[in-house]
Amino acid sequence: MNAPTQREQRAAYYESIAHQRLTPLWESLHNLVPKQPQPVAQAAIWKYAQIRDLVMQAGSVISAEEAVRRVLVLENPGLPGKSSMTPNLYAGLQLILPGEIAPSHRHTQSALRFIVEGRGAWTAVNGERTTMHPGDFIITPSWTWHDHGNPSVEEGGEPVVWLDGLDIPLVAHLDAGFAENYPEATQPLSRAEGDSFARFGHNMAPVRQRVTDPTSPIFNYPYERSREALDALYRNGELDEWDGVKLRYVNPTTGGWPMPTIATFMQFLPAGFTGRSYQSTDATVYCVVEGRGTAHIGEREFAFEPHDVFVVPSWQPVRLSASADSVLFSYSDRPVMAALNLLREQRN
Amino acid sequence: MNAPTQREQRAAYYESIAHQRLTPLWESLHNLVPKQPQPVAQAAIWKYAQIRDLVMQAGSVISAEEAVRRVLVLENPGLPGKSSMTPNLYAGLQLILPGEIAPSHRHTQSALRFIVEGRGAWTAVNGERTTMHPGDFIITPSWTWHDHGNPSVEEGGEPVVWLDGLDIPLVAHLDAGFAENYPEATQPLSRAEGDSFARFGHNMAPVRQRVTDPTSPIFNYPYERSREALDALYRNGELDEWDGVKLRYVNPTTGGWPMPTIATFMQFLPAGFTGRSYQSTDATVYCVVEGRGTAHIGEREFAFEPHDVFVVPSWQPVRLSASADSVLFSYSDRPVMAALNLLREQRN
Amino acid sequence: MNAPTQREQRAAYYESIAHQRLTPLWESLHNLVPKQPQPVAQAAIWKYAQIRDLVMQAGSVISAEEAVRRVLVLENPGLPGKSSMTPNLYAGLQLILPGEIAPSHRHTQSALRFIVEGRGAWTAVNGERTTMHPGDFIITPSWTWHDHGNPSVEEGGEPVVWLDGLDIPLVAHLDAGFAENYPEATQPLSRAEGDSFARFGHNMAPVRQRVTDPTSPIFNYPYERSREALDALYRNGELDEWDGVKLRYVNPTTGGWPMPTIATFMQFLPAGFTGRSYQSTDATVYCVVEGRGTAHIGEREFAFEPHDVFVVPSWQPVRLSASADSVLFSYSDRPVMAALNLLREQRN
Amino acid sequence: MNAPTQREQRAAYYESIAHQRLTPLWESLHNLVPKQPQPVAQAAIWKYAQIRDLVMQAGSVISAEEAVRRVLVLENPGLPGKSSMTPNLYAGLQLILPGEIAPSHRHTQSALRFIVEGRGAWTAVNGERTTMHPGDFIITPSWTWHDHGNPSVEEGGEPVVWLDGLDIPLVAHLDAGFAENYPEATQPLSRAEGDSFARFGHNMAPVRQRVTDPTSPIFNYPYERSREALDALYRNGELDEWDGVKLRYVNPTTGGWPMPTIATFMQFLPAGFTGRSYQSTDATVYCVVEGRGTAHIGEREFAFEPHDVFVVPSWQPVRLSASADSVLFSYSDRPVMAALNLLREQRN
Repeated sequence: MNAPTQREQRAAYYESIAHQRLTPLWESLHNLVPKQPQPVAQAAIWKYAQIRDLVMQAGSVISAEEAVRRVLVLENPGLPGKSSMTPNLYAGLQLILPGEIAPSHRHTQSALRFIVEGRGAWTAVNGERTTMHPGDFIITPSWTWHDHGNPSVEEGGEPVVWLDGLDIPLVAHLDAGFAENYPEATQPLSRAEGDSFARFGHNMAPVRQRVTDPTSPIFNYPYERSREALDALYRNGELDEWDGVKLRYVNPTTGGWPMPTIATFMQFLPAGFTGRSYQSTDATVYCVVEGRGTAHIGEREFAFEPHDVFVVPSWQPVRLSASADSVLFSYSDRPVMAALNLLREQRN
Repeated sequence: MNAPTQREQRAAYYESIAHQRLTPLWESLHNLVPKQPQPVAQAAIWKYAQIRDLVMQAGSVISAEEAVRRVLVLENPGLPGKSSMTPNLYAGLQLILPGEIAPSHRHTQSALRFIVEGRGAWTAVNGERTTMHPGDFIITPSWTWHDHGNPSVEEGGEPVVWLDGLDIPLVAHLDAGFAENYPEATQPLSRAEGDSFARFGHNMAPVRQRVTDPTSPIFNYPYERSREALDALYRNGELDEWDGVKLRYVNPTTGGWPMPTIATFMQFLPAGFTGRSYQSTDATVYCVVEGRGTAHIGEREFAFEPHDVFVVPSWQPVRLSASADSVLFSYSDRPVMAALNLLREQRN
Repeated sequence: MNAPTQREQRAAYYESIAHQRLTPLWESLHNLVPKQPQPVAQAAIWKYAQIRDLVMQAGSVISAEEAVRRVLVLENPGLPGKSSMTPNLYAGLQLILPGEIAPSHRHTQSALRFIVEGRGAWTAVNGERTTMHPGDFIITPSWTWHDHGNPSVEEGGEPVVWLDGLDIPLVAHLDAGFAENYPEATQPLSRAEGDSFARFGHNMAPVRQRVTDPTSPIFNYPYERSREALDALYRNGELDEWDGVKLRYVNPTTGGWPMPTIATFMQFLPAGFTGRSYQSTDATVYCVVEGRGTAHIGEREFAFEPHDVFVVPSWQPVRLSASADSVLFSYSDRPVMAALNLLREQRN
Repeated sequence: MNAPTQREQRAAYYESIAHQRLTPLWESLHNLVPKQPQPVAQAAIWKYAQIRDLVMQAGSVISAEEAVRRVLVLENPGLPGKSSMTPNLYAGLQLILPGEIAPSHRHTQSALRFIVEGRGAWTAVNGERTTMHPGDFIITPSWTWHDHGNPSVEEGGEPVVWLDGLDIPLVAHLDAGFAENYPEATQPLSRAEGDSFARFGHNMAPVRQRVTDPTSPIFNYPYERSREALDALYRNGELDEWDGVKLRYVNPTTGGWPMPTIATFMQFLPAGFTGRSYQSTDATVYCVVEGRGTAHIGEREFAFEPHDVFVVPSWQPVRLSASADSVLFSYSDRPVMAALNLLREQRN
């Protein structure tokens, strides 16, 4: 009888260690420690023209009250069954009809709302309501009570759709999710609308305020002002070869991100802009506000129009061009990468 | 002959050690380490109605060019000959006439300009000009080239007066002053007016900007917006028993002070407001923007009207009241106190 | 024919939206946003007495050179096939025999080495070698070249086993892994052994050094000193009802964690200690240095002895008791939780 | 009669504005905003051999109890009557005899003690005592109760002299001094000697400790360890052309300075070292621990021997050389300059 081969010996050894819940690193080292990121998430686009009817239809499928949150989740084709857009980020389109309320709750997941269409609905956070207009960027930070509502038709309510961006997959991965429902449908209001913005929105702050929280005290960044900033810079001649004119939203009490896990951006690409390619370890979800153009992501190419949503996974080269003056909102997990010293970026 | 008394012995000893540049701590300990602050600076007020003519007269005494800076220094009566308002702060009223230029220079002293009257003059900082309006708060941070100018009468220029606030006495005490003149009267302009504000003024920031400087990239905080913030808060019911409605100006890239040595504030006191007393180790210079009222400082009482300037030394109890809706701008050395762990504050 | 039920209608709707890669949030909301963490990872222990022979046997199964790293991975029974101890952390036992070298490479994953048995092997990081002794805690931070080696038997080499702790699962989840091999087996040495410790280990630092890196410049924290600190505190009467005497390792240039993704601790439990229960969102891997006792984790109970390794998943209540004077080393993903504002802790 | 000259006109104008406490900036601008620092403090040295007898004599001139602190103040010849070594720093030699106590008090001034000769006396801070040995660097941070004492002759006490370094002139300038006496001569002790060092001195920290204070929790940095660090680096080949081997003391909870207003350093200069010249806006007081050499400060030259104290004012070029292996302790107001963005340094 022959001596066992090395292969057979190793197989026997692997079996014996498996009983002790041990595995040989050397068989998996290359997968565990890759030369560069190999994201499973894929580049993809959701054409608003194709899905708008389905979103509106949800209004008759379920009520906001029954649904708690009436949202269609945009699921990355590379992450089936995971309700995820990227390993850390979630994206969904939420519909709220006139007269409806999405009841108050809180959770450790951080959320942003980017208003897609309709106006007049509201979000309440920390005892203050803010009214939604298309292009507004609203936050409901970790563990803050929040509820949404829409005036009745009589009061001028109209269907409102927004993009929800959350760190649900991140918090799930981290086993750090806690949640609670508020005992009432809506939280009590303790401050006038606009109060937070008056306190913190004008490059001033209350004289005795102390920063104790890593989230922005401003919870609505109105489109009007973001657009004005981009326009002014473009008029002044600003135009980056990669980014066009691109600003990030800021927590005015720290200069950092509005929330500790999600970065948000707005950028302007003038008609005819053909951007250069860059790649980064943060994965990014884009939502088109105005205009039209093309996103080249890796080997793929996506034409975009208003309200389309597309995603760029980690380290995929992306190149943006615009055939009409375009405005893009985007959000990514850049603060996670930066905080953990894992942000790497390359402009090609 | 008698033995020397203890007193004589000590005197002899003190003389012998004096030759070695030594002194006995025990003779001065109480002065060196006092129970509480004993400021030499005094509370005082400058009534604009009494000094405006003298300020305007300076225009015929010397040209801006010859003066370099045509400023009347407000000298604290407790600090004669020191060109100081407080141990750390300087205050002066600067006049610039139509068609004049105050030539470009830079220095390690940090400066603020608070516009008192007139409009249309400009300050240039870092290659960008900003136009002055009454109530605007403008900074020219440490070691930035800066020059001021005023359009000619033909172009609509009018005499403009502003309050200069600098940390000249602090920097002198610290032996840390450096200065340079620019080779030309005015620095070259490289950016459109409003560019810094477009980049940083709207709770957004350029996406690739890194904070490398402890000073605010915004260099004009317009009165229009500060006033709007105060008004909104007052309408919302904000009214502190000590402060009325009080905001501090913020460096939007850090949430900290606009400059590392000088804090700046604006507050609203409604007609009829009678504030409670507080005291703090930062010394504060106030400039009245609108309204009238009374400042009780220590044992003294000062009636104030628009454009008056008054000073509260360290640890003197101050109490503000208003007989008409009033707006007060103020600046202090609070960041110095805070950075050195020497800020102490008491609300009485 | 009957009208379709609501259930049927919804099913039809779900099918239609699935074509657009959309899913209904309301069907999965409770799973996505749980009331509290539901970790899939399980509490478990690896008894060193049961696995030591297998670890040693690995020396004859494969050479260090062929393996690159000759490590048996401790795989959490709740995470089969994932080479993971917790969602973010990896644990493995590495063996290096006399005369062997584990060749130089670098990767964005951060690694720690906690020496289990044997002495005299070395790790080189940033051009400096450090010699291993049992109980030493060594780091090879993200993207630093590192190699390990062991003197020959003639030079006094003996088999050395250490526990490897890395953030491999975290970096994999984040799609942020990069790696490179060094062209030679060992990196060139540019500094004497002990140089980093001389610079930073004595509560002093080079006068012109600037902190540009979030990782500790000390890369070996010797057991001798950690033990001395614990002993001194215990002699002084320190004894927390939950922790016994517990210290965390510190980056002396910031006071923060030695590496931005992994916290490390060492604690002393005197014989007879019966700790109270606590729970936290960071998941922790323990390695027993000395002594014996019991770890109560959730509903389970694990007796521990020297060199045993056990794991506490997120939010599982843990309670430690000791029947002999015991020293436990541990590491967790606490810096991740803290940086992302997701650290929650409860002492029961 | 002639028209008044411009000079006469201006004089009249200056007189009229003086009544309003106004002065013309243009007459003093050059002094107020100098091209570079013009310190009034002078370089100077105190030769310990010349003053030691006077220090010891103080023991018979006054008791520690009567003096509260029996200190001979080293007064800068450029700052007569100010009990100051530099604009911000004070230096004095304190003597405590066997059996004496310097009673407990606290003040907002920060203090350091650098032990010059004698051993066995103690300082108590925050309920813990530390025993003094020559070369130890001890802090008594702002507003901490502190008292000093010395065992009786019977218990082995011997006269102990240390250099006191405080920020008395800075705090006086800032009008921020507060002080209190403790009701008893000594504060109660609540912790064993060495407890703080055990907690924080070994590159570890208590696991639940939060940094709430800008001062170091270690209050004795023993000479033994500082010397060991310098020796190890020198053996490893470290030798800066300006500094020799120079380390700064560190607050291990932040990586910053031990106290927020005073930096401290220790450096080794090997026999034969001839340093290059540098200058900085921080003013520095040196105390020689071992060796001999020469300090070239500006145009002047000072030979130094053990225990001599010398001072380098702001921006004066300094160059150090050593004829024997030398160790120098030094302290400066560098943290003040750095915090206020006024630190400028030049290596010539």
